[in-house]
Amino acid sequence: MRLAEDEARARLMGHDHGVLCTVHAERGVDAVPVAYAVDDDYVGVPVDLVKSKASSRLQRERNLEADPRATLLAEHWDPDDWSRLWWVRAELRWQRDADAGRTAVLAARLAARYPQYRDQPFARVLVLHIVGGAGWAAGR
Amino acid sequence: MRLAEDEARARLMGHDHGVLCTVHAERGVDAVPVAYAVDDDYVGVPVDLVKSKASSRLQRERNLEADPRATLLAEHWDPDDWSRLWWVRAELRWQRDADAGRTAVLAARLAARYPQYRDQPFARVLVLHIVGGAGWAAGR
Repeated sequence: MRLAEDEARARLMGHDHGVLCTVHAERGVDAVPVAYAVDDDYVGVPVDLVKSKASSRLQRERNLEADPRATLLAEHWDPDDWSRLWWVRAELRWQRDADAGRTAVLAARLAARYPQYRDQPFARVLVLHIVGGAGWAAGR
Repeated sequence: MRLAEDEARARLMGHDHGVLCTVHAERGVDAVPVAYAVDDDYVGVPVDLVKSKASSRLQRERNLEADPRATLLAEHWDPDDWSRLWWVRAELRWQRDADAGRTAVLAARLAARYPQYRDQPFARVLVLHIVGGAGWAAGR
């Protein structure tokens, strides 16, 4: 069944990670698992500090520079009971020049949400505006 | 660290579900969780039998008709131990006129892999050719 918008938003806010999809000119889509936080109609995705920056870590940013459309999928899988499956998809637009206050709020939420960032903070936060979405659950 | 091709393929074959991403003309990317099976360089994704076919169930097929590029992401998340995170991404091309033998093998693998399909078989199988990919693991 399709989820109501409030229910979809609640599940998106409560889930522990998502898959961020961006548009790649040749491959069509790139997809990576990400940590994220939500504030109002905005999603923040951290870019981790890494000593050796493999190209795959920054490909999402190159993709967003070329095409700001992105999708975040939060989903729950249960191998034994498919009546518990659900997903929420947020349609996003990357904010190249995001408001500094908005960015700071999202950064604070990320730090509060993920204890891993206490020891090693992220390098920066990608700010993405939620412009649409959908949600689905197999049942109750 | 980047995974070797053999290791990435082994993890893809062993994982219980993935996120299938297709290109949507307006939204940029659509993404849905899917069951899947792998045979050689092909991935089979079932399209479930549903009584009321919500548009979201078939959107992936409309997307593939318009653009055959797809991506399947298999990923493991561990909220407490990020040194266990990994993901494998398969770059795919939908086969509009897939070989019947290939389709049958993938259908058989899906039925063997997911007991849920014993009671209610899927309607059909999307056949996608693996044309590239990448894999990453946080550590050992």
